[in-house]
Amino acid sequence: WKGAPELSSSDGKFKFKVRGRLMGDFNSIDQDEAITGEPNVNGVELRRARLGVEGVVYYDWKYKFEVDFAGDASEVKDAYIAYANWADWEKSEILIGQFKTANSLEDMTSSRFITFMERSAFIEAFGIDRQIGTGVWAGDEHWSFQTGYFGGNTSNQETWFDSESTFSVRGTVAPINNDTTVVHLGANYRHRDAGTSDETGFAELFRYRARAADLHLADRFVQTPFIGENDDMFVLEGAAVYKRFSVQGEYAQLETNVAPGIAPGVKPTYNGWYIEGSVFLTDDMRNYEADEGAFGRVKPKNPVYGGSGGWGAWQLAGKYDVIDLSDGAAAINASGAPNAVMCEECGEQKTWLIGLNWWLTDYTALKFNVTQSEIEGGVNDGADITGFGMRAQIDW
Amino acid sequence: WKGAPELSSSDGKFKFKVRGRLMGDFNSIDQDEAITGEPNVNGVELRRARLGVEGVVYYDWKYKFEVDFAGDASEVKDAYIAYANWADWEKSEILIGQFKTANSLEDMTSSRFITFMERSAFIEAFGIDRQIGTGVWAGDEHWSFQTGYFGGNTSNQETWFDSESTFSVRGTVAPINNDTTVVHLGANYRHRDAGTSDETGFAELFRYRARAADLHLADRFVQTPFIGENDDMFVLEGAAVYKRFSVQGEYAQLETNVAPGIAPGVKPTYNGWYIEGSVFLTDDMRNYEADEGAFGRVKPKNPVYGGSGGWGAWQLAGKYDVIDLSDGAAAINASGAPNAVMCEECGEQKTWLIGLNWWLTDYTALKFNVTQSEIEGGVNDGADITGFGMRAQIDW
Amino acid sequence: WKGAPELSSSDGKFKFKVRGRLMGDFNSIDQDEAITGEPNVNGVELRRARLGVEGVVYYDWKYKFEVDFAGDASEVKDAYIAYANWADWEKSEILIGQFKTANSLEDMTSSRFITFMERSAFIEAFGIDRQIGTGVWAGDEHWSFQTGYFGGNTSNQETWFDSESTFSVRGTVAPINNDTTVVHLGANYRHRDAGTSDETGFAELFRYRARAADLHLADRFVQTPFIGENDDMFVLEGAAVYKRFSVQGEYAQLETNVAPGIAPGVKPTYNGWYIEGSVFLTDDMRNYEADEGAFGRVKPKNPVYGGSGGWGAWQLAGKYDVIDLSDGAAAINASGAPNAVMCEECGEQKTWLIGLNWWLTDYTALKFNVTQSEIEGGVNDGADITGFGMRAQIDW
Repeated sequence: WKGAPELSSSDGKFKFKVRGRLMGDFNSIDQDEAITGEPNVNGVELRRARLGVEGVVYYDWKYKFEVDFAGDASEVKDAYIAYANWADWEKSEILIGQFKTANSLEDMTSSRFITFMERSAFIEAFGIDRQIGTGVWAGDEHWSFQTGYFGGNTSNQETWFDSESTFSVRGTVAPINNDTTVVHLGANYRHRDAGTSDETGFAELFRYRARAADLHLADRFVQTPFIGENDDMFVLEGAAVYKRFSVQGEYAQLETNVAPGIAPGVKPTYNGWYIEGSVFLTDDMRNYEADEGAFGRVKPKNPVYGGSGGWGAWQLAGKYDVIDLSDGAAAINASGAPNAVMCEECGEQKTWLIGLNWWLTDYTALKFNVTQSEIEGGVNDGADITGFGMRAQIDW
Repeated sequence: WKGAPELSSSDGKFKFKVRGRLMGDFNSIDQDEAITGEPNVNGVELRRARLGVEGVVYYDWKYKFEVDFAGDASEVKDAYIAYANWADWEKSEILIGQFKTANSLEDMTSSRFITFMERSAFIEAFGIDRQIGTGVWAGDEHWSFQTGYFGGNTSNQETWFDSESTFSVRGTVAPINNDTTVVHLGANYRHRDAGTSDETGFAELFRYRARAADLHLADRFVQTPFIGENDDMFVLEGAAVYKRFSVQGEYAQLETNVAPGIAPGVKPTYNGWYIEGSVFLTDDMRNYEADEGAFGRVKPKNPVYGGSGGWGAWQLAGKYDVIDLSDGAAAINASGAPNAVMCEECGEQKTWLIGLNWWLTDYTALKFNVTQSEIEGGVNDGADITGFGMRAQIDW
Repeated sequence: WKGAPELSSSDGKFKFKVRGRLMGDFNSIDQDEAITGEPNVNGVELRRARLGVEGVVYYDWKYKFEVDFAGDASEVKDAYIAYANWADWEKSEILIGQFKTANSLEDMTSSRFITFMERSAFIEAFGIDRQIGTGVWAGDEHWSFQTGYFGGNTSNQETWFDSESTFSVRGTVAPINNDTTVVHLGANYRHRDAGTSDETGFAELFRYRARAADLHLADRFVQTPFIGENDDMFVLEGAAVYKRFSVQGEYAQLETNVAPGIAPGVKPTYNGWYIEGSVFLTDDMRNYEADEGAFGRVKPKNPVYGGSGGWGAWQLAGKYDVIDLSDGAAAINASGAPNAVMCEECGEQKTWLIGLNWWLTDYTALKFNVTQSEIEGGVNDGADITGFGMRAQIDW
């Protein structure tokens, strides 16, 4: 039993489990309408509503397939076939299908287990996501390695034809990984080619943008137009856990080649980074999965249910999260190229977050976030967006 | 086994069940084209095609998640987390997520177990549906209570931002509830605020409308434009069952505040009600669930399958269903306000239904409905819509 | 265990199984842009991403429900209720819901088990697909029979109102069906009425079209406009298997009545056919299911997994596939009727395919196709489209 039952044939030849998650959110956000022109938000949403399956056939052939139905739309998440167990490590898989490109510690950590409600701004801004392709994932008690070569993803699979491609590679080490202490170091790289549409020359370029206040119902006040033909990104990762204490940070830098029709020769360099720290008020600890180079499920020592007397795990956290999309804005705006666009919202966003997580049981949690973003540069310069978010989540 | 297997860990700490339903319909409807301008209908549809899961983790944390795929669209239905068993009643749950606002006996009764193919006109007209929020549901052998505070629902979760809210409360009693006799009395109330969109001022108002002939493929001949800023609804419920006989009725009244830009100071009062009676030709009986104040699964004493010799349960039913959306139409039409609209189809619809249900087994049924609606008032005044519907259904 | 576990109550009264499939594709296609104007394709997609359930309640009531999420859209596939076991044959079912109209041996064979990546051109061109209706499916060791009467399907269930209908009937015999040898002969017929929309008179007509190179990401270079009010199709089927060798072919002819407003009295006759042969390089064999008149799961004698030493089943195949949509094009183009349309792409497509299938285990496979299409007639006359496709698939 892992939330839902994990069924297994007696010889271990077949395994099967249904999986899924629900996250119900409330967001209240003051969007500084005087500057941004966007009204305040008081809204609810099902942030994630997923159902799927995972299993094994013939010992070594694994599959995982999950769909998200939030917002009454269906969006395929992990959907891959893997040939596993070809090396004597905890994880050794060759994957085909849709899966994460493996860029960033925080993106590799499931949305169920991240410390704040939303991931850091650079993850949305730099388009770190699942794509369709093939890859190799391997790892053991003190290291992990992931690489892949991809085309588009399920939402554009029938329209992004011509040679869209992504290559990614990531390595992590955990020199210390025991019951009280974890040290994680990692680095990863990604190159993307947008491909060009013969029809428009435009729609398939990359854009870069992030939501304010690190909350999902906020609008975006730093963003570029569709400009990039191809880009290169590298990310450095670090984290340490000592019993109930934890720090984590990442630095990401991305250089994009603006399409010549928009601004010839312009290559802005964008960057994003965050640093966060957390402490459990109860005698609990973050759970590290070295073979994926990611954090896993928080398992409260005293879960909350009738008669248990347990209070769950209480985690207090703080974070500073920066995304800077201002580089090259002047050059793009000054371009007289035929398809020139204006980089009006190409600014920087700095966000403070304070979070309180109540991990009720292994599978249920409540999260509370108080956040504040400041915008520098662009038309929203000086805007001060403050937000409050709550989440209830369960998975199975 | 409840259709699909209900899996449980040996200590009862975890439970899990897959659930779903299929309903295949045929509708044939004469829409009185001479008056309404709408052609006749002869069509088939998958009325409901749902798949989902429900379960328990750590004894007291329940979840339910179901998605409907009818029409090749995905629509999230129940999707909530509940903390249960906090009182010594049959049901005691605190819910977060998307679930019913608990207004109306018929709406609280699953679509699998209602007596006619479609619910009564006021349920669609007054927008009684699931929404995202938090609530408390409790109940025992002779009473039930539900209350909740909600924002929008999954279909508008990312667009209805500013303070859309709904409050609902319902109480029911069943002074008699035994193997031969049930008496149900209930009342409920709901207040909704539509919130206002800064961009349009229009799209987020409420409208009220219902399909003709109480059949799903019919068009709507009584309906208001988008007019309501906020509304208050109360509903009275009554039902009685004595062995194979049953009567049931509800009366709903809704007062809406028309937006000042449309017609200042106008507050129409709409109402809807129905009365139905049914009798089982076989020795079967409707099944009441007092802790939810709703009717449950019909379980034929002699189900139909090869070699059983059983004939299932045969139920004959009649109903009269009225929805009146005519109030205030003259005032709205006479308004000279800047955003004035015309209330051309603000009329009354009276519908007769005769139904025959063949409950084949606990999980399969065939339903047959013959229906007739008359329209009074509005541009469709005098229209006489007649329909025939058939349904085959299964659930698991 | 059939991929996923098949759960059954101890008395066999209930059964339940989760089902699904994933297919990840890569296509590289030279679309002869000089003639067709369409650029080359280098793309990936999740071709199929399905999740569903099947089961039995009360011994004789079966259900099957599956949804495809490829492309982040949801599309209902099989979704039916069946009353089974009413005759002493291997299969005897009365179906209600959405299921295949049973036209063509290749369409009745699951996409998991067909020999090439895509089905033959006439199956798309003539619109052989699932529809909503009722039918009878029966079969035994040496024969099968399917008939049904249908309305539309789930994607148009709420818009194709007026009397759209389809009737189909199919019979197959397998005079020889043993462990080494199979002979299959079949014939089927289908009549469709498009119904007419009162609003447009146009959108509900039938059109006929097929993708180039028998690959899914290719564009269509033979196609008619929306022209047909009703059509009649018959198909002849033949197949033979002797140990590792197999041949299979079908011939389909369709006559359509062009709407009078487009070209009065014009009744083009289109046809499509294919012949294919395959040989297993390993000691494996295609698996025939006589009671459905279709091919089933390939079960490699030596499946591939760690330590097994097995090499799976290797199958080499060749195919010639023709679709001719050229008939009547001159008459349609010459029509002076009020809603006249131009039949510019009404041509013929001839496709050669070579395929290599690596059936790794009962549930996993890799497929490789090299294909070439020639277009004759219409504006794409002389175009030569060549393609390469790869697929990885798993099902459970």
